[in-house]
Amino acid sequence: MSTAAVRLAFLRSSRALAGELPSVAAVLNWFDAKDRSRFEVRRAPLTALSQWHYAPHPMRLMHRSGRFFAIEGLRAETGFGPVASWDQPIINQPEVGILGLLAKEIDGVLHFLMQAKMEPGNVNILQLSPTVQATHSNYSRVHAGATPRYLDYFTEPGRARVLLDQLQPEQGARFLRKRNRNMVVVTDAPVPEHEDFRWLTLGQIKALLAHDNIVNMDARTVVSLIPLADPDEGPDYGLIHDVGGFGLDVYLSFCRSDKERHTMDELMAWLTAGKARHAMRVSCLDLDRLRGWIVTDEEIRHETGLYFSVIGVDVKAHTREASSWSQPLLHHGGQGLVGFLCQRHGGVLHFLARGSLEPGNRDGMEIGPTIACSEVAARACRTCAPPLLAHFLEPGKGIVRYDAVQSEEGGRFHHFQNRYMVVELPPGQKLDLPDHYAWMTLGQLWRMARHGHVNIEARNLMACLGLLETLP
Amino acid sequence: MSTAAVRLAFLRSSRALAGELPSVAAVLNWFDAKDRSRFEVRRAPLTALSQWHYAPHPMRLMHRSGRFFAIEGLRAETGFGPVASWDQPIINQPEVGILGLLAKEIDGVLHFLMQAKMEPGNVNILQLSPTVQATHSNYSRVHAGATPRYLDYFTEPGRARVLLDQLQPEQGARFLRKRNRNMVVVTDAPVPEHEDFRWLTLGQIKALLAHDNIVNMDARTVVSLIPLADPDEGPDYGLIHDVGGFGLDVYLSFCRSDKERHTMDELMAWLTAGKARHAMRVSCLDLDRLRGWIVTDEEIRHETGLYFSVIGVDVKAHTREASSWSQPLLHHGGQGLVGFLCQRHGGVLHFLARGSLEPGNRDGMEIGPTIACSEVAARACRTCAPPLLAHFLEPGKGIVRYDAVQSEEGGRFHHFQNRYMVVELPPGQKLDLPDHYAWMTLGQLWRMARHGHVNIEARNLMACLGLLETLP
Repeated sequence: MSTAAVRLAFLRSSRALAGELPSVAAVLNWFDAKDRSRFEVRRAPLTALSQWHYAPHPMRLMHRSGRFFAIEGLRAETGFGPVASWDQPIINQPEVGILGLLAKEIDGVLHFLMQAKMEPGNVNILQLSPTVQATHSNYSRVHAGATPRYLDYFTEPGRARVLLDQLQPEQGARFLRKRNRNMVVVTDAPVPEHEDFRWLTLGQIKALLAHDNIVNMDARTVVSLIPLADPDEGPDYGLIHDVGGFGLDVYLSFCRSDKERHTMDELMAWLTAGKARHAMRVSCLDLDRLRGWIVTDEEIRHETGLYFSVIGVDVKAHTREASSWSQPLLHHGGQGLVGFLCQRHGGVLHFLARGSLEPGNRDGMEIGPTIACSEVAARACRTCAPPLLAHFLEPGKGIVRYDAVQSEEGGRFHHFQNRYMVVELPPGQKLDLPDHYAWMTLGQLWRMARHGHVNIEARNLMACLGLLETLP
Repeated sequence: MSTAAVRLAFLRSSRALAGELPSVAAVLNWFDAKDRSRFEVRRAPLTALSQWHYAPHPMRLMHRSGRFFAIEGLRAETGFGPVASWDQPIINQPEVGILGLLAKEIDGVLHFLMQAKMEPGNVNILQLSPTVQATHSNYSRVHAGATPRYLDYFTEPGRARVLLDQLQPEQGARFLRKRNRNMVVVTDAPVPEHEDFRWLTLGQIKALLAHDNIVNMDARTVVSLIPLADPDEGPDYGLIHDVGGFGLDVYLSFCRSDKERHTMDELMAWLTAGKARHAMRVSCLDLDRLRGWIVTDEEIRHETGLYFSVIGVDVKAHTREASSWSQPLLHHGGQGLVGFLCQRHGGVLHFLARGSLEPGNRDGMEIGPTIACSEVAARACRTCAPPLLAHFLEPGKGIVRYDAVQSEEGGRFHHFQNRYMVVELPPGQKLDLPDHYAWMTLGQLWRMARHGHVNIEARNLMACLGLLETLP
């Protein structure tokens, strides 16, 4: 398939609400009917977790095998942002895993194999995940044992055709330099079925993203990289003749345009200058020497009770492959807010990106959404609220284009929910912005994302944008 | 200026052999007439270098101030390539500097301000360098003293318009994770003159690149990022009606085309898979514990006399601002070979890129040229020669499109010369290639380079390609 054919297949799939399952309702019926009682998640003290312990030099919480991940202490120092220095625990998981979507044409429409997957930190036990979530140990088969289902489509050359394979960063505020391969591969051959997996269209996945907590973070990051138009081509109105409203704006913002407020060269220069101007010094610390944090046998928490805590869980899965394990999770109370402001410039929808500098970023500043704040900040009083918060909490003349609650990865985070929003400002409304903000189109965001410059919070929101709105 | 206008200005400048200086010969006359006797470079033992010493824990060679750079010990271990593990000294210079070209339109043609600059490691003392080569300490003005001439055009907002600003990696085999900002900025305002600086067209710089050792590495890396066509647009034959031969092939390879052998998505997937499959473990070692290396008061050298050595120099500049300093340099005997094979596929020139994994790379595999080998390997017997070496040493039916000797940065390297070559294979000649090779057009290489994925050796060769060949 040429690039054009692949892009067209993505576009068509993104418009399809009926597929192998006849409707979004049918997908929800299947998903709701899954048995959640097979899984049991119980809180346990960190020091009681089987195979986990506090190791010294530096003091950290780790698995006795040295594998999986560790919770380490970190000090951040920076001249960027309102806080000059802070300490925090962070997850160190050096392995690069695969988040993979297997695709297949069914009746001429591209479908994606999604899994109803249990994760211990999910608020609702099950969420829809990509076909494969595998760590490097899984896919390089370092250790014996079952390899994840369908993994070979992503690792065996010739088994499927690779449509997309990119290294993408995850939460730099919680992970130390973590990245995963985000992959989409396509096959023509028959694929074995399994009761936990269903073939969905991209349109069905996008429609499910309007619901709270159905599509998991790993699926969202892969979906965010699937373009809804070819950013190298102008719009093809024949293809989208019945798309209307905000969906049409989203499509046009993906397409090539000469109405972009900044050129790609200018945006690269903006990002480079941001990386050069705003630095962060990160150093390792013993967990029990972190300022403001309390480390106990039970948990690790901040003395104010704010931010997040590290808790332990024992997990039991009463499935045919009965299994149980213990692990730490990062618990987050309340709800954060992650949002993009967008606005038409020259008739083309632009999104307000913000340079984001987090201690776990691999290469300094990344491109983030307009706002991303934890629960603490989201409910903050006006005097200490993050910039532009009011545009989301009281949109006024702004139009709320997207508003749903989504969870971060349930394999590492416990009940970590964010409210995701896209708010469109009236054309012409001026904002007074510092130089680490820049307006860009979706096509430009996508080009930046392809090279790993766009952070997970911004990608999450990109995934939620679709072309489902039709003309009245 | 729009992107299109900037690209057009670059293209026009790249075709101009006459500018403020009327010809390439006039540039060479000016350059040759510069007084080289003002500079004196003398070998000195490492331990006799003023302000430099061997520091412990880990043992390394460093400046007493902790600034500038250090020579450290490193062990590399990898499953990629013929050697599984080796030790070597490496330069650790954590600062991000600026390599900047100031541009200005003169009589409607974009000119670039080039400097005849002395560097202690240059075989010929002076080479043409970009307008500014500044370390972060220089441009953030951490210390008192004169700031480099013309620096403010690159650092003061509003002083000039930024056309290009990218973070680019340098030699991963010699530098530990080093990157510099590569910048091109343009001004309309009068620029103060200085005897060591001249305004050259891009065509003049490209023509000088056909000569040995005139244009320095810092200039070459910035020039490599200046596109000769807009990779988003098809060819405009009106603009290049008199370009012929290989120059026309170079232009068409920069332009948008549907004849590309791989899509950008496929090339990103190729690079990502290479990064995921081929890893290198790098650890710090004391200099005096490196296997095979001998550390003395005089120098650091390999026991075989091969590879490179670390030597010391005392430098005196008898200029108005009389100055002297001492520093270590990495001395390289003989000549390496850096080359691209190219070939027409579907009528469009493609270049054979090779995944390159070096211990100093920041993010694993980068995109390198077809071949890059040190003097040792270049003269190696057939049984241990690097792949494809014969295509350069005995081109046979291949056509040599570029062949000149260029030096690596004279501020860190002493007499480090490489023969740079581009050889075009006859169409249809098949090569049997492992999966870490990929054919790509110049437009694709340029897109990859923009995001920092292309290594300095490949960029050097990109800089040497031009549109100067005219129709007979």
